[in-house]
Amino acid sequence: MEPIFNRVVIVGAGLLGASLGLALQKQGAAQAVIGVGRRQSSLDTALARGAIQEGSLDLATAANDADLIVIATPASTVRPTLDQIQARCSEKTIVIDVASTKADICAHAARQWTAPRRFIGCHPMAGSEKSGPEHATANLYEGSVCLIEDTPDLDPAALSQVHALWKRVGARVVSVEPELHDALLARTSHVPHIMASVLALSAAQKGATSDVVGNGFRDMTRVAAGSPEMWRDIVLTNREAISEGLNDIKQHLDAFLDALAAGDDVALTALFEGGKKARQKVLS
Amino acid sequence: MEPIFNRVVIVGAGLLGASLGLALQKQGAAQAVIGVGRRQSSLDTALARGAIQEGSLDLATAANDADLIVIATPASTVRPTLDQIQARCSEKTIVIDVASTKADICAHAARQWTAPRRFIGCHPMAGSEKSGPEHATANLYEGSVCLIEDTPDLDPAALSQVHALWKRVGARVVSVEPELHDALLARTSHVPHIMASVLALSAAQKGATSDVVGNGFRDMTRVAAGSPEMWRDIVLTNREAISEGLNDIKQHLDAFLDALAAGDDVALTALFEGGKKARQKVLS
Repeated sequence: MEPIFNRVVIVGAGLLGASLGLALQKQGAAQAVIGVGRRQSSLDTALARGAIQEGSLDLATAANDADLIVIATPASTVRPTLDQIQARCSEKTIVIDVASTKADICAHAARQWTAPRRFIGCHPMAGSEKSGPEHATANLYEGSVCLIEDTPDLDPAALSQVHALWKRVGARVVSVEPELHDALLARTSHVPHIMASVLALSAAQKGATSDVVGNGFRDMTRVAAGSPEMWRDIVLTNREAISEGLNDIKQHLDAFLDALAAGDDVALTALFEGGKKARQKVLS
Repeated sequence: MEPIFNRVVIVGAGLLGASLGLALQKQGAAQAVIGVGRRQSSLDTALARGAIQEGSLDLATAANDADLIVIATPASTVRPTLDQIQARCSEKTIVIDVASTKADICAHAARQWTAPRRFIGCHPMAGSEKSGPEHATANLYEGSVCLIEDTPDLDPAALSQVHALWKRVGARVVSVEPELHDALLARTSHVPHIMASVLALSAAQKGATSDVVGNGFRDMTRVAAGSPEMWRDIVLTNREAISEGLNDIKQHLDAFLDALAAGDDVALTALFEGGKKARQKVLS
């Protein structure tokens, strides 16, 4: 397979960045993969795993002659990192990120970059409750969906190359408008993540132990094992949609509480039936 | 291995009942397994799968000479089934159930049966979102936990045989007082189940599709695919503990809403950190 990019710089050698480095090399999609980080230890791990061919602590210099820069830092640091990169990279460099929220980041890019824009917001829906380059795998993105911002001012050639990149590492590409992205992800990812934490808190407070826990509880709270700092950053960049989602959840809970208080078997059946059908609809 | 029981009657040929029939025969724990149901079709399926050796629509006659009767009917029908059985079975018959709630059922048995009581409430924590004898397997209980009521008036010999039964089919036995059982299971099973339904409802209402869904959402809503009627019955027999649990969830959600409204990164980190530690504590 032909390389898509010559020199790829990945900023942030965490699970997503290091896995992309491994995948790009496995698929022959890049001639060279350079990792940029703030800590030498993460770069050393990424180097040892073969995720990057070279490590650097100096973003400005590395950005200088890159064909593609991937910002794989925590959601809260994407904006400042993007500003730093913009000041140093060439006009031909394509820049993407991999953060779980898009509206804030893409709106910032739209303000700072001239059209046709060569920064393109991406959200590969891959990962796990594990983090760090030590858990990176070349097949992390295989069979996943990568959501890519759908905005009129993007450079069509850059967009086409970014699509090719994600397809090459095994992802299915779906275009979505950034505000809609965040509204939907609030309901399918951010609010569920908060619920996982809340369910664990509520069970622990009552003194629950592994003796009274089945697979359902394990599955439903699994994401609560993820990095608190990473999730703090994600939810802080999507506050309004998440708050709306949490208030919606409270209303649904009130419907269950009312039905329970009334012992209303018909209403309870309808609520569970509604939940079952809603899941089928979302996953179909 | 020696049989533990001569004649075992399983009332209700659903997933749990039919799987127990298969497991008892595989482990040589029963000389004969008779299934009692209300529909011939379920009995025919259970017979065809080898889960029972004989099927009957007549509980009263079947109960007559049983050594062990397993009530594997929906939670809401355990009490009337128990009353029917009590009127017909011999003084030596041991009776158990497999319902997901225990306080209501065990309190009823304590009122109706003389001590030392030979009805012993059981809750094998096995099963899935699938139901019906067509999904029954001989290893459903292997590696699971069976919660058994811890009440002073139980017949020690019967209790010992019931422990042996669950161990023989691969379960670890844990004794728990019925009221505590329901308080804990509200937090680890019943409230999480309601949350799975609510998360699916909230995502569907916003128009979420499979394009914006990752493994987290799939895992967290999986139990919402279960039988609405079965879950209606479960929650109706544990209304108070579940309502308390749902109100507790709402309070935790308010803590997240407050932190989001204030953009309080320290509070959000602490909340996610608390959820992570709570999960570790429960599962340790």
